[in-house]
Amino acid sequence: MIAQLQLPRSLESRIGPVTIRRADAGDLEAILALMHDDPISAARGDRPEPGDEAGYAIALAAIVDDTRNELIVAEVSGEVVATMQLTSIPGLSRRGSTRLLVEAVRVASKLRSSGVGSAMMRWVTDVAAPAVEASIVQLTSDAARSDAHRFYLRLGFVDSHVGFKYQVGS
Amino acid sequence: MIAQLQLPRSLESRIGPVTIRRADAGDLEAILALMHDDPISAARGDRPEPGDEAGYAIALAAIVDDTRNELIVAEVSGEVVATMQLTSIPGLSRRGSTRLLVEAVRVASKLRSSGVGSAMMRWVTDVAAPAVEASIVQLTSDAARSDAHRFYLRLGFVDSHVGFKYQVGS
Repeated sequence: MIAQLQLPRSLESRIGPVTIRRADAGDLEAILALMHDDPISAARGDRPEPGDEAGYAIALAAIVDDTRNELIVAEVSGEVVATMQLTSIPGLSRRGSTRLLVEAVRVASKLRSSGVGSAMMRWVTDVAAPAVEASIVQLTSDAARSDAHRFYLRLGFVDSHVGFKYQVGS
Repeated sequence: MIAQLQLPRSLESRIGPVTIRRADAGDLEAILALMHDDPISAARGDRPEPGDEAGYAIALAAIVDDTRNELIVAEVSGEVVATMQLTSIPGLSRRGSTRLLVEAVRVASKLRSSGVGSAMMRWVTDVAAPAVEASIVQLTSDAARSDAHRFYLRLGFVDSHVGFKYQVGS
């Protein structure tokens, strides 16, 4: 957990109020359902299978317990409809700036273009980043996610970098 | 520091042995000189100026002291010639995988294409990532760094993602 973040918090969206809060162990099933609801993750074989539960539970605990990581869920009318992970990274570049890395952004497919994702990302750039004294927010998005790219550009992100991945053991 | 990494370590390169080790406070000047030696960082105004020293020293201590971060320097004949930062990030995606993020890779301009950078990245993918149980290594590279992109592709990285940055307060 990133202690400086004041959560839970209510955000406005086009479909009404959205509550963002820290995830806990009880959110695992809902978060996995959001990952499952994503065709690009599924296409790379990132899909929960029987027997994977223990590993996911351990991973969730590792994120929740870590002082530089925060797993966020967003609720609408008491239902978890979106998630994202934040990581605060100390650095020397850009005059000793802290970076805030956003990973694993998922919004339920029925709520895409509802303003929920925008409300979450606005909170990241305008509230969370200043709270952790980050001067830059960064994320990578699969090259196939053209809708997501337009979304981030609209929010003021700049697509200045190429994101490289290396599969260990490949 | 990422405790599982066995350092210092001697690597082979085309110009002879390269020693990689954890950075400490005494390396600050050499690391800043490597950042200064990079036209793309300089072009975005990322250049040490008088009065910045204290901020850089605090940032270096924050990285060195952090259990999920590691600042590495590489030495040839006792001279610091390259640096990079590693961050171990717990995650739920890809079946609860840990990711190893590489940031701020800098090799002295006189030693580009010497094999020093390749030796460092091979150590990251083949030794460091397995040691921290990471199943993926990821990094972003400025779109202007076409030489670096060819370098990462040769090492087996895949340029599957777009890297977005948001300047806080912009």
